[in-house]
Amino acid sequence: MPDDVHAEAIPEGGPAGAVRRHRVVVVGSGFGGLETVQRLAGAPVDITLVDQRNHHIFQPLLYQVATASLATSEIAWPIRSLMRGRPEVTTLLATVTGVDMAARQVLLDGEARLPYDTLVLATGVRHAYFGHPEWEPFAPGLKTLEDATRIRRRILLAFEQAERETDRRRQDALLTFIVVGAGPTGVELAGTIADMARDTLPPDFRNIDTHRARVVLIEAGPRVLAGYPEDLSAYAQRSLERLGVEVELGRAVSACTAEGVVYGDRRLEARTIIWAAGVRASPAAEWLGAPADRAGRIQVLPDLTVPGHPEIFAIGDTVTIAGPDGKPVPGIAPAAKQEGRHVAGTIKARLGGAAGPSAAFRYRHQGSLAQIGKKLAVIDFGWIKLRGALAWWIWGIAHIYFLIGVRARLSVAINWLWIHIRNQRSARLITQGRGAEGLPETSGSSGSAGAPPAL
Amino acid sequence: MPDDVHAEAIPEGGPAGAVRRHRVVVVGSGFGGLETVQRLAGAPVDITLVDQRNHHIFQPLLYQVATASLATSEIAWPIRSLMRGRPEVTTLLATVTGVDMAARQVLLDGEARLPYDTLVLATGVRHAYFGHPEWEPFAPGLKTLEDATRIRRRILLAFEQAERETDRRRQDALLTFIVVGAGPTGVELAGTIADMARDTLPPDFRNIDTHRARVVLIEAGPRVLAGYPEDLSAYAQRSLERLGVEVELGRAVSACTAEGVVYGDRRLEARTIIWAAGVRASPAAEWLGAPADRAGRIQVLPDLTVPGHPEIFAIGDTVTIAGPDGKPVPGIAPAAKQEGRHVAGTIKARLGGAAGPSAAFRYRHQGSLAQIGKKLAVIDFGWIKLRGALAWWIWGIAHIYFLIGVRARLSVAINWLWIHIRNQRSARLITQGRGAEGLPETSGSSGSAGAPPAL
Repeated sequence: MPDDVHAEAIPEGGPAGAVRRHRVVVVGSGFGGLETVQRLAGAPVDITLVDQRNHHIFQPLLYQVATASLATSEIAWPIRSLMRGRPEVTTLLATVTGVDMAARQVLLDGEARLPYDTLVLATGVRHAYFGHPEWEPFAPGLKTLEDATRIRRRILLAFEQAERETDRRRQDALLTFIVVGAGPTGVELAGTIADMARDTLPPDFRNIDTHRARVVLIEAGPRVLAGYPEDLSAYAQRSLERLGVEVELGRAVSACTAEGVVYGDRRLEARTIIWAAGVRASPAAEWLGAPADRAGRIQVLPDLTVPGHPEIFAIGDTVTIAGPDGKPVPGIAPAAKQEGRHVAGTIKARLGGAAGPSAAFRYRHQGSLAQIGKKLAVIDFGWIKLRGALAWWIWGIAHIYFLIGVRARLSVAINWLWIHIRNQRSARLITQGRGAEGLPETSGSSGSAGAPPAL
Repeated sequence: MPDDVHAEAIPEGGPAGAVRRHRVVVVGSGFGGLETVQRLAGAPVDITLVDQRNHHIFQPLLYQVATASLATSEIAWPIRSLMRGRPEVTTLLATVTGVDMAARQVLLDGEARLPYDTLVLATGVRHAYFGHPEWEPFAPGLKTLEDATRIRRRILLAFEQAERETDRRRQDALLTFIVVGAGPTGVELAGTIADMARDTLPPDFRNIDTHRARVVLIEAGPRVLAGYPEDLSAYAQRSLERLGVEVELGRAVSACTAEGVVYGDRRLEARTIIWAAGVRASPAAEWLGAPADRAGRIQVLPDLTVPGHPEIFAIGDTVTIAGPDGKPVPGIAPAAKQEGRHVAGTIKARLGGAAGPSAAFRYRHQGSLAQIGKKLAVIDFGWIKLRGALAWWIWGIAHIYFLIGVRARLSVAINWLWIHIRNQRSARLITQGRGAEGLPETSGSSGSAGAPPAL
């Protein structure tokens, strides 16, 4: 973009000529940011919603895009179209590079300035490598649609290359899939890859038996799904093992390379490694000079404001705050949504003339759900724990319910039906150019995009 | 991939230990290649289907992916899964780099060799720039899924950038969309972009009125849809103009740059240019040293074999052959499928002991269909010409019918329903990294992938 798109370019919200209203800037359109905007409906505010992507993602199902079960457009919605009924909301596709707290302006792309009266930071996290950023090319993480299509491409290409490989050891490495980190995402990825190798792919290959694929789930801690009750963890591990996943506990990964991983005293050759272990918050704390924990999460006050700045809220994965049980509020969608709702309520109360300190946020844990594999899930509602097929049905219905709009719900339901009835995963498409991912081990032979003509 | 994946890696088809059967190698899994394989079902042959992509694309609807109406997985199917019921078919993800006709081997990725008894080349075309390959970065064409998501990204980003632009002239350039070439693809793209600007996008933007968007269709020839009867061409042009498309006939484009195009004596500033004009065949003719026309299409014999090589067939867009009316067979899906069927029949006849020359291919034109915009289409069946809403319904039903599988049909039908009832285009996702496309004019601000953390 030209370099002279400047402050004036940034609308201050509202139709021209309207009375100047309280300006709320929300950065990030994940669950927290979107909920804040939605709960501000009807309030006398002009809202600008800034994101560096043009779409909201339903994160809990992102692993299903990575494993070719769902299409990208089934779990992502253009932010603009979500806001079409809200003329007071302006959507901006831009990258926030800082906050000028004295001037009350958000810096966009290092140049433009967007003024605010109230700022809500809901900027999320990115996967992190415990100080080893050099592992990223070998062990991509899963946070964005691009991450998901990249991982999908690697998994599918590994099978394609194995089909053509004659060297047995190299074929074994191609058919070994390592998932690092056994939280919900790691468990769901490992279980789904095992499902795919066992149910979906076998009839499609001629030279390899995809049952031979090894899926190895490596976790530094003592059990999978550490946030769940111990008996559900044990059940999840047994279920994964029954699906053929090798669960390796109590050993931390100490190296990721193009050849594989080293964990504890072991070395495992693999061409596909997926990172589901550490995360690091967005640089929001740095923009503000705010106190943060080791993962970069802002230590907000009980009312979710940044210390010393009652006009700046921070919510979701970008903050750390204690829940009623004293433990940190988990980094999950319902928590971010509750926080967004709380912030919207506080803003409305202040505009309504409420004086004194804002109400403290109180987290209510509604439950934890994780899919392990086809027709297997664990659910912890606190008052009841479920596992197995019934848990899987509840998991599926809950996830379809939380998708946005009838079209996506129908479409996801149809796709899941097809996976279960026909063992077909429709989104098994290898796309994206090689250049786009800097995949060091990618074959020259298997390129799809990038190389233009030929076929 | 390691450099020592070699000839032995290439399966010769069929289970180990089986009697050696006639080996058919089909290169390309478009309509022609796929039809050949499908029509060879039951024949005593081992088939290897080679493609440099892992999916078959339903080309006639690719422009709907480019215009955010459909998702990639709705018009693309993994080739492997299409072949799952055919144990005698081996699928290879590889790029053909040549043919050793003496040894009867196809060269893969410059190294591996794949032997054949009969070879079928169905390698298609790529867009071409009349000797100006330097135009490609500014005016991408539409042949692959990656092309489609790239064009989608450019169109959506142009609106996003226009929303933030204050300089009126620059905003005009961002809101100008040029389509070069008024064949069916050009007409369909121009009409759909106009539809999108008029119906889908207006409620989503705050600072720009998307009705202001100019869609300019430039054609060097005297009319749009030159392959259709003149009255349908005239109707199509009137319909496009009613949708707001500016149709510019009789002027050839002489320059494409980041600033716009020059055509005839005119210059038009635009930030989005789409190329739907020329095509050039894949290098199949060069592999064979076969006679070819100026677009690189092989001049095959009437039985679709390559002169001097009765064991090599070539079909689809990669060849040129005269139809019964003396005019060249058009480069459309039904023609490629008829040729594929003819080749499969010839191979089966030869295996059945038929002596003498093979039967000549005879093209039967079943009709031409093109969508102009929402609820507008033209159809020429020869014996009847249709236009308007009825033609559009037939167009829609025919296209859904020719999709593969119930899931894709359901899914496309649902999406079309949503576009028509709700004016929603669900696939409005800006994905792919900047690096992946080398888009010179892309803003630093609006990047999605590529730039990792931040939001």
